[in-house]
Amino acid sequence: MIRAGIIGASGYVGTELVRLLVRHARVDLHFATSESNAGASLDDLAPSAPSLKLIGLDNAPLEEVDVVFLCLPHGASAAKAVDALNAGARVVDLSADFRLEDEAIYRDWYQTEHPAPGLLHEAVYGLTEYARDCLPEARLVANPGCYPTSILLPLKPLLMAGLVQGTIIADSKSGVSGAGRAPKQNTHFVEVSGNFSPYKIGRGHRHLPEIEQQLRHWRQPAPSVIFSPHLLPVPRGILSTIYVPLTPGGDEAAIRRVMIEAFESEPFVKILPAGKLASLAHANYTNRCVIGLTCAGNMLIITSAIDNLIKGAAGQAVQNMNVMFRLPEGEALS
Amino acid sequence: MIRAGIIGASGYVGTELVRLLVRHARVDLHFATSESNAGASLDDLAPSAPSLKLIGLDNAPLEEVDVVFLCLPHGASAAKAVDALNAGARVVDLSADFRLEDEAIYRDWYQTEHPAPGLLHEAVYGLTEYARDCLPEARLVANPGCYPTSILLPLKPLLMAGLVQGTIIADSKSGVSGAGRAPKQNTHFVEVSGNFSPYKIGRGHRHLPEIEQQLRHWRQPAPSVIFSPHLLPVPRGILSTIYVPLTPGGDEAAIRRVMIEAFESEPFVKILPAGKLASLAHANYTNRCVIGLTCAGNMLIITSAIDNLIKGAAGQAVQNMNVMFRLPEGEALS
Amino acid sequence: MIRAGIIGASGYVGTELVRLLVRHARVDLHFATSESNAGASLDDLAPSAPSLKLIGLDNAPLEEVDVVFLCLPHGASAAKAVDALNAGARVVDLSADFRLEDEAIYRDWYQTEHPAPGLLHEAVYGLTEYARDCLPEARLVANPGCYPTSILLPLKPLLMAGLVQGTIIADSKSGVSGAGRAPKQNTHFVEVSGNFSPYKIGRGHRHLPEIEQQLRHWRQPAPSVIFSPHLLPVPRGILSTIYVPLTPGGDEAAIRRVMIEAFESEPFVKILPAGKLASLAHANYTNRCVIGLTCAGNMLIITSAIDNLIKGAAGQAVQNMNVMFRLPEGEALS
Amino acid sequence: MIRAGIIGASGYVGTELVRLLVRHARVDLHFATSESNAGASLDDLAPSAPSLKLIGLDNAPLEEVDVVFLCLPHGASAAKAVDALNAGARVVDLSADFRLEDEAIYRDWYQTEHPAPGLLHEAVYGLTEYARDCLPEARLVANPGCYPTSILLPLKPLLMAGLVQGTIIADSKSGVSGAGRAPKQNTHFVEVSGNFSPYKIGRGHRHLPEIEQQLRHWRQPAPSVIFSPHLLPVPRGILSTIYVPLTPGGDEAAIRRVMIEAFESEPFVKILPAGKLASLAHANYTNRCVIGLTCAGNMLIITSAIDNLIKGAAGQAVQNMNVMFRLPEGEALS
Repeated sequence: MIRAGIIGASGYVGTELVRLLVRHARVDLHFATSESNAGASLDDLAPSAPSLKLIGLDNAPLEEVDVVFLCLPHGASAAKAVDALNAGARVVDLSADFRLEDEAIYRDWYQTEHPAPGLLHEAVYGLTEYARDCLPEARLVANPGCYPTSILLPLKPLLMAGLVQGTIIADSKSGVSGAGRAPKQNTHFVEVSGNFSPYKIGRGHRHLPEIEQQLRHWRQPAPSVIFSPHLLPVPRGILSTIYVPLTPGGDEAAIRRVMIEAFESEPFVKILPAGKLASLAHANYTNRCVIGLTCAGNMLIITSAIDNLIKGAAGQAVQNMNVMFRLPEGEALS
Repeated sequence: MIRAGIIGASGYVGTELVRLLVRHARVDLHFATSESNAGASLDDLAPSAPSLKLIGLDNAPLEEVDVVFLCLPHGASAAKAVDALNAGARVVDLSADFRLEDEAIYRDWYQTEHPAPGLLHEAVYGLTEYARDCLPEARLVANPGCYPTSILLPLKPLLMAGLVQGTIIADSKSGVSGAGRAPKQNTHFVEVSGNFSPYKIGRGHRHLPEIEQQLRHWRQPAPSVIFSPHLLPVPRGILSTIYVPLTPGGDEAAIRRVMIEAFESEPFVKILPAGKLASLAHANYTNRCVIGLTCAGNMLIITSAIDNLIKGAAGQAVQNMNVMFRLPEGEALS
Repeated sequence: MIRAGIIGASGYVGTELVRLLVRHARVDLHFATSESNAGASLDDLAPSAPSLKLIGLDNAPLEEVDVVFLCLPHGASAAKAVDALNAGARVVDLSADFRLEDEAIYRDWYQTEHPAPGLLHEAVYGLTEYARDCLPEARLVANPGCYPTSILLPLKPLLMAGLVQGTIIADSKSGVSGAGRAPKQNTHFVEVSGNFSPYKIGRGHRHLPEIEQQLRHWRQPAPSVIFSPHLLPVPRGILSTIYVPLTPGGDEAAIRRVMIEAFESEPFVKILPAGKLASLAHANYTNRCVIGLTCAGNMLIITSAIDNLIKGAAGQAVQNMNVMFRLPEGEALS
Repeated sequence: MIRAGIIGASGYVGTELVRLLVRHARVDLHFATSESNAGASLDDLAPSAPSLKLIGLDNAPLEEVDVVFLCLPHGASAAKAVDALNAGARVVDLSADFRLEDEAIYRDWYQTEHPAPGLLHEAVYGLTEYARDCLPEARLVANPGCYPTSILLPLKPLLMAGLVQGTIIADSKSGVSGAGRAPKQNTHFVEVSGNFSPYKIGRGHRHLPEIEQQLRHWRQPAPSVIFSPHLLPVPRGILSTIYVPLTPGGDEAAIRRVMIEAFESEPFVKILPAGKLASLAHANYTNRCVIGLTCAGNMLIITSAIDNLIKGAAGQAVQNMNVMFRLPEGEALS
């Protein structure tokens, strides 16, 4: 049995992670912390969650576990990752702290010095499908952002095959759990219900440099990216509608062949048949990324759906852990 | 022209009041305050609201207006009512501070001394349909609670006619704007969406003594009341399903006659025809109380719908002001 | 392995049943029919459902299975039950056809002759917690209605203990999937969203005689019942707020003792601690009935939550099947 | 007083039109028809609508009115327009029948011959802000589609100023009322709630040729267009996020100047200040088109919000009528 701990279990991602680990046949969930709710039982906060006693962060016995999942805000996460690594645990960090390889880019986007720059190059960017080779040896895994997961998964095969030219536009729409559990004006039911709002569109959202970094690994020069997130009046799910200008001669049949070849043996990526488009209903409550492909002239339009709390966070974290510890990749996720 | 001021305009009720007063042909909205948003324009907070500069509470020129609407939390409201009255303005208080006539009952339910007990007996309980005689002379009007409005309006004629015996059960369901604009865990979109929750059921909600007080005015001894509020995943609207045990011999035809006679000339109360039930869609975005009547044996079941922000708050406040100043009662409300 | 067939798999209940049986370790789902969608794959209709070929009703090999689940409209179901029994299969009928023991009551409420009256007395009313003794020998199980499940489960111990006197009022609220998958005006998104509507309140809904029949088994004379269903703007879940007048001397502590004793070893019934109320969030996506208990004077207010598609339909059907075939009762349900 | 008739008043657009005309100071609503609900009162169908008797289509006294509004499906509308014109009435057609000037394009997209091709060139495309000169003399006005209204309004000044080059991508999201009142599987509450779905993306939706036709009037050669509609889980509202590649040297300040100049005196178009983005909450329940402008490199991102039933249909129809009859343009709309 793998012994696991969760730091920050009372948020939406943390609670989803508890659900997954509790039903994992090979994992013993050894502790779960909450700063604001230490002493409470998780099902006091989330009525359908498992009954699990939450402890304070300072009481977490890091040295007693094999793996620690960090569900903390960026900034706070890095320091705790250091503690966990020092205690001998491996770490899956669900914050943004180790996703950017370049300290300067982190500083630009987060307006602060990185708390543990020495670990940046060790961290493995855990888009599981593309990180399988590195994960078994990884001490520290940076779990990807939710939006990037939906955008990057379908793009890699296209970039590697040289099928893309020009600016990629990702028009993304997310459910409200992506904004976290802490109540804010813009997550108040009355503000969200019946509404639909763009935010930080263009080149303003912190998931943009994360997306661009991966594209650069796959193609030089990388295509430029416009990324426009929107807030949907639903609790969970992301749909990204991605506009990809194709190199001359690219047609839907060719694209489809490349994509099917790339993903046909992937358990958690599904390419829809021609004429079908992805929707939240395809992916919610699953660890799948479901992808539709539509061509309009030389523009490929990808519709890519994930559950932001599962494949976009807790599910992918478990998938990463499974590969790290050489367990069946789909355990607790199917 | 009547000159009006609003204290507390940035909450949901205050903003609704601004909308109504801005389109009122006989009112000049002279000022609107907000503690947390002084200096901002109202449409920065509520995109479809009028563009209106919000001022600080201390800058409100109370002496320059004929009427002040108080949209403050209970406790804070009473002191401001005193100031406004001293400045020569008449007051419509939308908080709970002047709804209970008995200081001891206030103390029991609010766990604090009443801030201005000397005004309790002067205040007119402004269920407009039943307060028309007192309103033209009133200096201080206590605007009824949203739940009580939906429950009390249909009950008065039945009690006055001696048709009720036994315990009345009001099973009420409210939209989320009733919980106010300040973000809290239980108004977070993710908590509310797809959910439905009872709270303070039985004899635990502060609107209960307000209901009981009015019933005692209408019938001695008054029937006892069970009141069970629930939170609906909608932004606005209240539906109360009210179970009223009838005295022997009461039947639907007799009930219907009493109710039609009571309300046939009321512009803002609508009795539905036999077989029809009230729903939120009957009342939302209107100042109406829509009432359905169903008998099951000797149990009358009333379905009573209002818009909690309009007939349950801002609309009834304007209706009260119209009567206070001998303006057409429906001005700005039809 | 038990071989199972589903008649009517493309509705919301049928699809939920497919999900449950597909993950059941001891069941082989041998066929699934759909009249309107024969030839299609289930995930064409419900994007996140398993990929499963739907066959026509006439092609269902009834003689090849151990158990048939009927998810058909009432009236249509009874005839198919006869066929399945004749083919040697056992039957779990999720329609209303075999819930009423008395042919005359069926005729009154359904305005038609019962299609198979000879089976009425053989059918076991499958409220699993109260039917365990009969299920292992049953050929034909009538799966309870969704509303009755939420209302009857908490009432039995109270009636058996003689704690109830007077009229029971069940004010119930259901998500829209309870109205079925066929599109109708009253299930149109625009009609339901932001709305909340009572329907067939008092003594008008067909689940009323089903409730009364069970109460008569538990107490003579049975208390009379008022039952008021309402349509909630959520996809799934039922909350029943049940007002139960107590015999003199009944208090919350006594009630709580009776209820805890009745349910403490039940895996799928949870009594909440004092002060807690049931909400949809407690029960959705689970096979649980979650029950809160509140006393107000001599009135007990029960809040009882279930997922209408699981404990209120497909989940309870699987639970019944598990007991019928002496499998672990919670298999595929926990 | 202008006498008006509505053909097809029981759909969502027709009902909204009734609401507007009933409060119009200069219009007498003379008749309203419904094929499926003749004889009923409108408030039987829509609880908060005015109480208005619906008559059969054949009983509509076309010769008694000055203007007829057609709220019929395409195909059916054209024939009725001919009847109304022959009876001496002017016509505002809210269907798609007279939006396309070119009979061949109609045939391609609607797969049928146009029912009244002789009227195609007489019809005025009623995007009010751009049709004011023609409307006072127009006998037949083609009210624009909802999506095109949100997309075309902001684009004209940019195209006229020669600021655009390359492909325009309009990623649009609409509330469910845009799909009409007739219940269908894809408008079932359970299918829509919690979901978000693209449909007919790229070059597949019938609003595309309508958009392209107008662009050709404004710029030769016109930019090509990709148009991707999505279904939002809200009852009303459209947000179009429009990606417009700029000619070299275009920057946000220049764009903003052009747009402010174009719209500063428009009562129903609002350009948001820099840094603000349009959302449904800006436009719902109003006749406004609210526009945000964001530049990312040489890409302009327009966020454009309307209420699909008002500015996108009934409101614009009334606005057109007001200009046709030289009434104040904002009457009944402000």
